[in-house]
Amino acid sequence: MTYTLVLLRHGESEWNAKNLFTGWVDVALTEKGRGEAVRGGELLREAGVLPDVVHTSLQRRAINTAALALDAADRHWIPVRRSWRLNERHYGALQGKDKKQTLEQYGEEQFMLWRRSFDVPPPPIDPDDEFSQSGDPRYADLGDEAPRTECLKDVIARLLPYWESDVVADLRSGKTVLVAAHGNSLRAIVKHLDGISDDDIAGLNIPTGMPLVYRLDDDLRPTVPGGEYLDPEAAAAAAAAVANQGR
Amino acid sequence: MTYTLVLLRHGESEWNAKNLFTGWVDVALTEKGRGEAVRGGELLREAGVLPDVVHTSLQRRAINTAALALDAADRHWIPVRRSWRLNERHYGALQGKDKKQTLEQYGEEQFMLWRRSFDVPPPPIDPDDEFSQSGDPRYADLGDEAPRTECLKDVIARLLPYWESDVVADLRSGKTVLVAAHGNSLRAIVKHLDGISDDDIAGLNIPTGMPLVYRLDDDLRPTVPGGEYLDPEAAAAAAAAVANQGR
Repeated sequence: MTYTLVLLRHGESEWNAKNLFTGWVDVALTEKGRGEAVRGGELLREAGVLPDVVHTSLQRRAINTAALALDAADRHWIPVRRSWRLNERHYGALQGKDKKQTLEQYGEEQFMLWRRSFDVPPPPIDPDDEFSQSGDPRYADLGDEAPRTECLKDVIARLLPYWESDVVADLRSGKTVLVAAHGNSLRAIVKHLDGISDDDIAGLNIPTGMPLVYRLDDDLRPTVPGGEYLDPEAAAAAAAAVANQGR
Repeated sequence: MTYTLVLLRHGESEWNAKNLFTGWVDVALTEKGRGEAVRGGELLREAGVLPDVVHTSLQRRAINTAALALDAADRHWIPVRRSWRLNERHYGALQGKDKKQTLEQYGEEQFMLWRRSFDVPPPPIDPDDEFSQSGDPRYADLGDEAPRTECLKDVIARLLPYWESDVVADLRSGKTVLVAAHGNSLRAIVKHLDGISDDDIAGLNIPTGMPLVYRLDDDLRPTVPGGEYLDPEAAAAAAAAVANQGR
């Protein structure tokens, strides 16, 4: 028995296009991003990898990516689960800031530390900042658990409880599971699945809109380390482009 | 304590536009239909009627209406439940047939009997018919329960168990519940809520894309019989148009 997990990073958002740090700011997909989602769904349909259940974050760009991809794959009718634990990394005080400007202001070393270090979060966002989520009804139940900044280590810590309780439960029941989420929440899952070290995860980039398929064994270990992209050439090119963001 | 229920009929579908009987055939919304859904969501947002959970059928036109409306209302992140029990009435052998042609072929009396009688279903669809849903994976678990034709009485019989078990449970927990569904599954709910007789329900038409808000008392009886449309004038005009379909 192998289990099938599909990871799908949302397509281009309005703030990807503008090169701003987004984090928990709930921006929409661009027309290009919507097209990426549809293409991702077509790849699923063509490969016959048909999700039985979808898990998304509480953020519009992942929610709409899931809806568009599933519609294109003719799987729009499957059950939907959502959790804030699949949200993008909270980018703290950097949310809403221009990436290039931040790079110039703070220098390459600090910039890359915030972007890629495992355990150094940016400064926390002020609750009164226009790009803070304080007062957002979808996070009202979280109370003090609601982050004001996160590093990747923090993302892993809040994601894994949901992974174990909800995603693994669906996998164990034999369902093909689609997780439609974000660059860093998906990196957290990949790090966990592939046993990637805290250092090596910095070099891992997940391209947008490209279904990444993992076949997992009885111990939920990948039968192919790193999984398999349904469109490997496009995925490699896209990952390289992500790595150069902000340059 | 009053409970809040919002009913939303999907906007124009490709087959509404072509004047074909649709039933369980899984057609898409037209651009006009997508616009109706967005407008419905804007009305919810403007009125401050904010769903905490959404229930949809397993059909694309209701699923996408819910997604577009909730996105416009900034409630895209709420939990989603789906059930075949909220599907449109199965239109039997009429699925895929032209409404005007059917009217001419069978005459006004038989046509209106199929469209509006409470307990006379059209002839059952042949499982080999191109517009049958036999073999559709989303209904595979239903087995013999999968309908091959339905009258409104049949819709009520398969809808009410889900209403009682799932929708009422969400209402009783104090959630504002959105049900995004179809002309006949929503008529079934309205008939149940307002205690409309088997005869009188024939005259009730629910317009597309117009949120219909019910405030329910402790016994789940409407505090205002028939509920309230958020845009009453537009709703009255649209209901009149629906009544004239096929003429």
